[in-house]
Amino acid sequence: MSKKERLIFLPLGGAGEIGMNAYVYGWGAPGRERLILVDLGVTFSDMDTTPGVNLIMPDMSWLADNADRLEAVFITHAHEDHVGAIGRLYGQLGAPMVYARPFTAYHAKRKMEEAGANPDAIKVVLPYPEMIEAGPFQVSFLPLSHSIPESAGLVIDTPAGRLLHTGDFKLDETPVLGDVFDESLWREIARPGIHALICDSTNVFSDHPSRSEASVGPELVKLVKQAEHMVVATTFASNVARLQQLAAAGVAAGRQVCLLGRAMQRMVLAAGETGLLSNFPETIPVEDARDVPRSELMLIVTGSQGERRAASAQLARGKYLGLELAEGDLFLFSSKTIPGNERGVARIMNAYSEMGVDVVAESPLYHVSGHANRPDLLRVHQILNPDIVIPMHGEHRHLREHAKLAQTHGRASMVVVNGAVCDLTGKAPCVVEHVEADRTYLDGSVLIGALDGVVRDRIRMALNGHVMVNVILEGNEPLGDAWVEIMGLPEAGSSRAPLVEVLEEDLSQFLGRAKARLLADDDNLIEEMRKIVRKTAQDEIGRKPEVSVVVSRLE
Amino acid sequence: MSKKERLIFLPLGGAGEIGMNAYVYGWGAPGRERLILVDLGVTFSDMDTTPGVNLIMPDMSWLADNADRLEAVFITHAHEDHVGAIGRLYGQLGAPMVYARPFTAYHAKRKMEEAGANPDAIKVVLPYPEMIEAGPFQVSFLPLSHSIPESAGLVIDTPAGRLLHTGDFKLDETPVLGDVFDESLWREIARPGIHALICDSTNVFSDHPSRSEASVGPELVKLVKQAEHMVVATTFASNVARLQQLAAAGVAAGRQVCLLGRAMQRMVLAAGETGLLSNFPETIPVEDARDVPRSELMLIVTGSQGERRAASAQLARGKYLGLELAEGDLFLFSSKTIPGNERGVARIMNAYSEMGVDVVAESPLYHVSGHANRPDLLRVHQILNPDIVIPMHGEHRHLREHAKLAQTHGRASMVVVNGAVCDLTGKAPCVVEHVEADRTYLDGSVLIGALDGVVRDRIRMALNGHVMVNVILEGNEPLGDAWVEIMGLPEAGSSRAPLVEVLEEDLSQFLGRAKARLLADDDNLIEEMRKIVRKTAQDEIGRKPEVSVVVSRLE
Repeated sequence: MSKKERLIFLPLGGAGEIGMNAYVYGWGAPGRERLILVDLGVTFSDMDTTPGVNLIMPDMSWLADNADRLEAVFITHAHEDHVGAIGRLYGQLGAPMVYARPFTAYHAKRKMEEAGANPDAIKVVLPYPEMIEAGPFQVSFLPLSHSIPESAGLVIDTPAGRLLHTGDFKLDETPVLGDVFDESLWREIARPGIHALICDSTNVFSDHPSRSEASVGPELVKLVKQAEHMVVATTFASNVARLQQLAAAGVAAGRQVCLLGRAMQRMVLAAGETGLLSNFPETIPVEDARDVPRSELMLIVTGSQGERRAASAQLARGKYLGLELAEGDLFLFSSKTIPGNERGVARIMNAYSEMGVDVVAESPLYHVSGHANRPDLLRVHQILNPDIVIPMHGEHRHLREHAKLAQTHGRASMVVVNGAVCDLTGKAPCVVEHVEADRTYLDGSVLIGALDGVVRDRIRMALNGHVMVNVILEGNEPLGDAWVEIMGLPEAGSSRAPLVEVLEEDLSQFLGRAKARLLADDDNLIEEMRKIVRKTAQDEIGRKPEVSVVVSRLE
Repeated sequence: MSKKERLIFLPLGGAGEIGMNAYVYGWGAPGRERLILVDLGVTFSDMDTTPGVNLIMPDMSWLADNADRLEAVFITHAHEDHVGAIGRLYGQLGAPMVYARPFTAYHAKRKMEEAGANPDAIKVVLPYPEMIEAGPFQVSFLPLSHSIPESAGLVIDTPAGRLLHTGDFKLDETPVLGDVFDESLWREIARPGIHALICDSTNVFSDHPSRSEASVGPELVKLVKQAEHMVVATTFASNVARLQQLAAAGVAAGRQVCLLGRAMQRMVLAAGETGLLSNFPETIPVEDARDVPRSELMLIVTGSQGERRAASAQLARGKYLGLELAEGDLFLFSSKTIPGNERGVARIMNAYSEMGVDVVAESPLYHVSGHANRPDLLRVHQILNPDIVIPMHGEHRHLREHAKLAQTHGRASMVVVNGAVCDLTGKAPCVVEHVEADRTYLDGSVLIGALDGVVRDRIRMALNGHVMVNVILEGNEPLGDAWVEIMGLPEAGSSRAPLVEVLEEDLSQFLGRAKARLLADDDNLIEEMRKIVRKTAQDEIGRKPEVSVVVSRLE
């Protein structure tokens, strides 16, 4: 403990994946660093790896064990992968203050309330040059352009020098709504020298400079003006600038505009309550929309990713809140399909196609990304001129590519993945330790560990089906035959006899022959019966199911 | 039955999806048409909708009921979505002849052998002008370029005029291996007039003309020559032209080339045995590859779609057959990720990234599609000048777009989906009936219907978990307590007590209070206990599991 003080960076989520961001910084003697946490987000589950899981969150056990060292939490922006877990996990953190700009704080408070945590822990802050003292750190919020209002980078002054943690950002000088990229402000911040830049890596593989949000508006107007029947557009609910441009396009085309879907209404409400909506066109409630002639109506709806319960999917299934798509209508995806969501989006597009609706999707005319592309990343490296670049917010391949990019231009850089403790004190970053950084699942209402085996068992049942066996013993004598039930398995296989009967027959034969010593030993008996079920099932139906055996003993 | 004879087209698979192609044509009096079947393919399962299913195939029950009317089967090419189900479903078809060109026939025979069907039913045919008589139809195989050797369209002469069924195709005048697009031959076939064109729709949304397979070769050579360490490339195993170009690039760069993965070796073997491999570079077996210096070695491996058991995934996990990737190696995806496979491919790319391997993926330089793009489709419409265009091989949105394209240029066209019987006799196509056209699953070794509920139950267990309850009754008295087991559920919930114990407690209380009449009634008793489990689980863990209750009665 007598070692020199050091500056550490420890991602607990978001480094090696796109999602569930959670980054720790620390300063102090090794093992006694005072800490801050930046962001606490979620990732969404999928059927392949996490069926039935409600949300995926970073495992906070390391930070919970060190909660007494945590000075404060900072949330960069209100996307779910940055703020989504603050409510559920706050209780593990030892009641720190949580700082955010107004729009982000609005959402963070709601997360706290929903999870039964104290919303007053959320503190609204002003942007740079306003500064928050958090132990050895002084932290300022740098307004940035991104695909949600009031995104911020963090200027973190430490005894080892100034850090810039970008959060999610792009360089947009005409973002329509929210903060403009202000190069002079960035240069001002860089003037004392940036020791390390911790930087968004999402779009490092995109070779062209990012396009501005403002480029989308005129194209939207053109498209909506051409449409003859009803127009429906979807985008990410949190992209308030896009919502505004979509609504403006509707108004420009002489249409009444209606927002459909709770997430969208909530976002507009939040933007309104935090004073961000000076230019938002007038919209009508859904009850009024039903009375507007279809050719004079434009709906803006949730569900750009094909989510089954969103408005887009409801409309794909038929009438929704009294509104319905029809032949000749136009449906616009003003969005990009996030990898993994292709099938759900295609399902909706095909349902619209069956209705005769014209779908416009995946067109760069009607969507721009919220992240800095490769040339923009380089530009930021040059403006800030940091000694060190640490890539974050990316899968491993994004982080590695970003590190290579920085190294090519003569900067120290390395990939630091979840759980790696990186020493940033000197000129060369260096991973010095590893801590546990797994995942926590919200499963129903329960938090479980990713490695608990609960989800593994569900996946196995989905792939293999499930056989349940009951046997009753009196003393060591089977009382009646084995009783079998199946779930998720074919009723009959190669012998054409019901699978249940074939299994019961084989089990009963086994029990009839079994020695008393085996019948007296639950563990061995269950294991033998499981083997028989799996073998017989393999012969009959060509697969080995999951097997649960219950032995009941009468006394 | 006295009605006029007619020409019908009935897709049983492939129209409204990309996969499991199966198209019926018929001529005769309504209900007594003599039939031919074109292709009999599979679709692959996914975790979202078909967990644990081995293969998805078209439901042949309509054709099985009318097997006495089936004259013959024709297979256009050897891709799994065109030939994959011929073995498993042949037994339902009443032993017709199956015609295919040599390379396709080679694969069809293997499918028959694997399924225990008679491989001698597969007849090898020569291309146009060779012609097969099949009842009222005369059928010729038109050699086409596609992404597999010996793809063919079918020229089908009927009493109502000539049809052209394209199968999968592109217009490639330099396909490297396999059949060249021969416009003069197409014009010759069109000379008597084409009544209807039944046409591949896969790439109708791609606006630029397709690029030739030959354009890939020089880029591959450039890339491989630049590489300093080991090179590994993956592509679709069936794309023999690509394998040849990859291998040639390796040889041009002074490397020894080794093919890894069974599917790839099988394809090259098939191509060799059917005389297609005059120019294939020499390859070395994997045992020899281990002794070649890494910088002089190039592997061509299976698994371009991230399949877990393919060579690419095995190498991503570590050593495979004694070979291993290392820092500085190059891994090339000479392929496109099929929608839905993005996550699996990304998983592999990230694993390589962790090894320090440079991955090149999704680059148009190193891959071209095997399907005709929109301008090519228009060109084919113009060359053949059919009265009618019926789009096939596409999701609904592809079919609809293709029909609109044809209509815009003054041709009769309509979307005909699986199960729709389309009358093609006159100048205007018209859907006159619908037949059942569901899906059949190969589940383990058993064929089940998509609507049997087996897979639905597996999905439910994956999403909700499974609770098993056992109760023993003697007379109408519970003997001991209820016994509960869980699978795929958290061990404890809101009360912190083990979920199993909470459930057992609630069930035992219920049993203690239950009236004799209820205890005597299995169905009601099971239903009541299921309700209790679901309610208690909802309270404890926030979800309602699947529940199986077994009531054992001692006599």
